[in-house]
Amino acid sequence: MSQINVGIIGFGTVGVGTVQLLLKNADAIAKRIGEPLVIRKIADLDTKTDRGVAVGKEVLTTNAMEVIDDPRIDVVVELVGGLDKAREFILMAMEKGKHVVTANKALLAEFGREIYCSAQAAGVHLGFEASVGGGIPILGALQGGLAANRIETLVGILNGTSNYILTGMTRNGLSYEKAVEQAVKLGFAEDPPTLDVEGTDAAHKLTILLSVITGIPIPFKDIYCEGIGSIGLDDIGFADNFGYRIKLLAIARQGDGWIEARVHPAMIPKDHILANVNEAYNAIYLEGDFVGANLYYGLGAGGRPTASAVVSDIMDVARKMLQGVKGPVFSPGKNMSPLQAMQIRPMEELTSIYYFRFSALDSPGVLSKIAGILGDHEISVSSVIQKGRKDKGAVPVVMLTHEALERNVFKAISLIDRLDIVTDKTVIIRVEEGFPNGNA
Amino acid sequence: MSQINVGIIGFGTVGVGTVQLLLKNADAIAKRIGEPLVIRKIADLDTKTDRGVAVGKEVLTTNAMEVIDDPRIDVVVELVGGLDKAREFILMAMEKGKHVVTANKALLAEFGREIYCSAQAAGVHLGFEASVGGGIPILGALQGGLAANRIETLVGILNGTSNYILTGMTRNGLSYEKAVEQAVKLGFAEDPPTLDVEGTDAAHKLTILLSVITGIPIPFKDIYCEGIGSIGLDDIGFADNFGYRIKLLAIARQGDGWIEARVHPAMIPKDHILANVNEAYNAIYLEGDFVGANLYYGLGAGGRPTASAVVSDIMDVARKMLQGVKGPVFSPGKNMSPLQAMQIRPMEELTSIYYFRFSALDSPGVLSKIAGILGDHEISVSSVIQKGRKDKGAVPVVMLTHEALERNVFKAISLIDRLDIVTDKTVIIRVEEGFPNGNA
Repeated sequence: MSQINVGIIGFGTVGVGTVQLLLKNADAIAKRIGEPLVIRKIADLDTKTDRGVAVGKEVLTTNAMEVIDDPRIDVVVELVGGLDKAREFILMAMEKGKHVVTANKALLAEFGREIYCSAQAAGVHLGFEASVGGGIPILGALQGGLAANRIETLVGILNGTSNYILTGMTRNGLSYEKAVEQAVKLGFAEDPPTLDVEGTDAAHKLTILLSVITGIPIPFKDIYCEGIGSIGLDDIGFADNFGYRIKLLAIARQGDGWIEARVHPAMIPKDHILANVNEAYNAIYLEGDFVGANLYYGLGAGGRPTASAVVSDIMDVARKMLQGVKGPVFSPGKNMSPLQAMQIRPMEELTSIYYFRFSALDSPGVLSKIAGILGDHEISVSSVIQKGRKDKGAVPVVMLTHEALERNVFKAISLIDRLDIVTDKTVIIRVEEGFPNGNA
Repeated sequence: MSQINVGIIGFGTVGVGTVQLLLKNADAIAKRIGEPLVIRKIADLDTKTDRGVAVGKEVLTTNAMEVIDDPRIDVVVELVGGLDKAREFILMAMEKGKHVVTANKALLAEFGREIYCSAQAAGVHLGFEASVGGGIPILGALQGGLAANRIETLVGILNGTSNYILTGMTRNGLSYEKAVEQAVKLGFAEDPPTLDVEGTDAAHKLTILLSVITGIPIPFKDIYCEGIGSIGLDDIGFADNFGYRIKLLAIARQGDGWIEARVHPAMIPKDHILANVNEAYNAIYLEGDFVGANLYYGLGAGGRPTASAVVSDIMDVARKMLQGVKGPVFSPGKNMSPLQAMQIRPMEELTSIYYFRFSALDSPGVLSKIAGILGDHEISVSSVIQKGRKDKGAVPVVMLTHEALERNVFKAISLIDRLDIVTDKTVIIRVEEGFPNGNA
């Protein structure tokens, strides 16, 4: 073997970043793996637009099958995104014995089991570092330098767009709508940024992280997912009063015989290192039984950071090829068995601290009525703020609870929301104090 | 091969952590690599003390050669520390064809070239993740998920003890001496913590990081190293006034044809994510040409975090053995050549922003004399603070400069320190604003 031949399907932002990297750092890459990486074919429906990279015309094609069928190509890089086409390309490439590198988180979250098993069956390598956290090499860390640990807790800020929006609300006092508008204008969000603000993108990534941690693909649909759309500036302000910041968190926890997986906005102590991850940055905080608290931080999206992970994955595949290692060496597929299907604990069994913002009429007895219902459901209150009394209309009444059971919380709030004195749906935000402040 | 046999030399804190981990997570480890890891022999001069781990008597020996000579043992784990004995054990083990895992940063910094070359010559694997940053898998990240990048900047808080001391001074207003005392009392520092506070330990780790980044062992003695002993509470306070925190930093930078490597205390902007790494935590901040700003954070010492890295290294070696991969696949040794000896840029060619604290008599004309000498050396001042006028005696005069050349700075300060109006050696602290605030 005197070189490793690469074919790329999808020549958008990440595709262009990947080609730029392969060209710019070609010498160093060849030195690090022992042989050069050569781009043989790039497929994209648009082969006309000038991307500002020096790629010969003969390399470009509009037909993905020219990449998949090319017998010279060793590694197929799937960067088209989306589900159907991408899935088809990857499965066909694997069938032809080609190793695959992909950045496609939605695909791995939805069809992970099929794709991991196909790699296993075909004996090919599958690299997907770029699917989580952009350039942050978190999947490599979990499978490599952290592999000896039982990962007990993982808390991630995995979606740059929603973090950018929440940062704008917190730092600049922008309303949710204004913050979204700004994020779209500056290119940090799609218009509309539905998958991002609803938590779907973060849940996709959490699915993949969990598959790597447990060795068992978790069904994406089992992951509880709640977005940031109901967070108001009021909540940001009250959080600040209580010493918290609001972040969209992806949380996984495992104990003996149970596993938790959920994506939702949460309040975390201001001085926790995760609370200080702002703008479009991503971070993964985790606790292993031996390593203790660890944090990994970097840009979670964008052509260049994502290309960093894609090309590092290609290098990893290339090294294994050159060493004669048959794939996949270590992938979620390896330990999979239908018998091991992992049961995610239902959300109603969660215990947490809760923040409630009630919209209540400013009349006597309101507090006692609300507190009464909470008490009936074994929810005890640790702090109350009642602010901004108006002559008429609703005022916010804000409460923090002690640890309570989610099932009870939702029962109580649904009763409270039916009270005449309550004028709007109560905002509920979970408070995460359960992971030690690594930096107290 | 139906199991991987491990021998350990050194049964202190890290040795015990390693055995605890191998026992506690044995099932998961076996599942992850395909075969169990079995502890065959543990050598330590003290085989009597009960370490609270279930190890059979037949496993313990006072003779390290029983580990090195045991034909059953595949992987030798060196955890004795220090230079001479450790070096001897490792070289002998390699000669016998055994793979080696070590946490010994001093050894790799001082004798890295010899050890990397010996691994290469013997065709064995060498794992040393535990030598830098405790449980933080930074060496794996540099060789794996970041491998496609040119690492342009690396800034590390690599010594937990000095970080603990500086945190105590900053947060609790402790004097340097009190902070050291507390660190010793709470077990965060040896007594005296010379290697830590003088920067030697951080410089050892920076040497190893640079070897991995460049593929060429850097001579440890070429790395500039300055400790935290001259930092006073005054400096912590003035830094705060200017919007900075003081940290002991290990800094490496590379550009076209030049490389910088230095360990010294530095002021960094308070809102930089590195400024918020406190107590005994370590962090490595880096910038790659594609990945952008990344941060890795965790406990940099201690038996359990270090064991996390040691056992993950054993697992990595085990996987390679089971895959039939000959070692070393990727190590600083691979690209080494005397021709490539890397020249570290002399410190006098550094340009930086500087903080000066002069001890000057409170008499007319002091400021103009000092400023005059600075001006003669092309050092321009951006801020001045003169505080605490006393009836007689010296007052601190504090200045921040614009970018200046280190050579000029030391010339100017040596002239200033000879002035009659200057009563004590001027404190000089570099200010690092040159790495983008990843979290602005």
